[in-house]
Amino acid sequence: MRMRKKRHLDERLEKCSDVCLGWLPDYTAEQRGDPPVPMFDVHKVFGNSNPVHLEIGCGKGRFIQQLAEENPDINFLALEQTPNVLVTAMERTCASGVKNLKYYAGKAEYLEKVLRPSSVELIYLNFSCPYPKESYAKHRLTHPLFLEIYSHILSENGYIKQKTDNQRLFEFSVENFSQNGWSLRNVSLDLHNSNITGNIITEYEERFTKMGLPIYYLEAFFKK
Amino acid sequence: MRMRKKRHLDERLEKCSDVCLGWLPDYTAEQRGDPPVPMFDVHKVFGNSNPVHLEIGCGKGRFIQQLAEENPDINFLALEQTPNVLVTAMERTCASGVKNLKYYAGKAEYLEKVLRPSSVELIYLNFSCPYPKESYAKHRLTHPLFLEIYSHILSENGYIKQKTDNQRLFEFSVENFSQNGWSLRNVSLDLHNSNITGNIITEYEERFTKMGLPIYYLEAFFKK
Repeated sequence: MRMRKKRHLDERLEKCSDVCLGWLPDYTAEQRGDPPVPMFDVHKVFGNSNPVHLEIGCGKGRFIQQLAEENPDINFLALEQTPNVLVTAMERTCASGVKNLKYYAGKAEYLEKVLRPSSVELIYLNFSCPYPKESYAKHRLTHPLFLEIYSHILSENGYIKQKTDNQRLFEFSVENFSQNGWSLRNVSLDLHNSNITGNIITEYEERFTKMGLPIYYLEAFFKK
Repeated sequence: MRMRKKRHLDERLEKCSDVCLGWLPDYTAEQRGDPPVPMFDVHKVFGNSNPVHLEIGCGKGRFIQQLAEENPDINFLALEQTPNVLVTAMERTCASGVKNLKYYAGKAEYLEKVLRPSSVELIYLNFSCPYPKESYAKHRLTHPLFLEIYSHILSENGYIKQKTDNQRLFEFSVENFSQNGWSLRNVSLDLHNSNITGNIITEYEERFTKMGLPIYYLEAFFKK
């Protein structure tokens, strides 16, 4: 079901322009040779040289907002392709006055064209769309096409934190990471009953956990 | 609980000597430089050059016996360190008249000293002891010490099939395989409800599955 466009969406987005770095047009992997917007320097954007952490698919942004508030010495970037959802995240950030969190509206295919190589220390993939049909596997955010992009934008010791409730997406992710030169650590088939600390619960995770179902988790490093 | 020694164990083992390749003494990783028995040539043992598949920890051997009966063109080797258990497997094989299955009594630490490099096409790790205490992690059969041994005895396109009901052992295995140059495929968090075909159910697996709990599964390839 397609979400109905929120009322006055354009005006609301316009009011949040301080926390928005740009709007990416629809952009497919085939077009990757032809960048539609210029690359930007995240350190110039934030006015400091703090490390950069990126969430791909931030939804309504509760997770990244909490992280930004708790970690003022880290710059946070959040990507989300659905403006209807993103506007909620941006309004919350504007209202909070937090300065170390900025948003980018668009698709992950595009990241390599707007972020410099080795410019990101940590990528969060939280409850990414599982695209259950195998014919849509190339849209899953841990498809090798995406892993290649992440390997370029991550710094030498950079890594990915992924969590999902979707069994097939998790299996697919483990397969692809291991087959494409990534190492896995802190793998958990039940994050909430593991020794892994510091988890911030997303809106989606809260709903899902109340149903008594496990959250799958991993951390992935690219061996540069 | 230590298993009580079966009555007349020595005589029963002696009667099965046709299907037994050898008895390895207790042998620890620290002693690996000093092989206590000579290396043997599996093709000479079986009298043919068929591919060799190895099960490490065969228990009472129902799994490997069924495989051997169904695949006369493959040579099967099975390792088990508990004679009390192994004698049941060996007696079944003797009674069946199957010629393509032989046993080796001993520890997996020792494999590299008795099997030639690249001599095995497939290794089965079925419901290996999980050694739940982290201080015993080096005894788990997917500890890096063991993965190194497997990487030597496996052929160029050889691989491992692992299944377990133990969540922590599975997580530990995924971490170690990915961190030590192995690729994973056919990863499943619920083998019996997956698309993976051809599974042969072990004694242990049958008991566990009746409790309604999932079986974790993976295949691991070493990139030589």
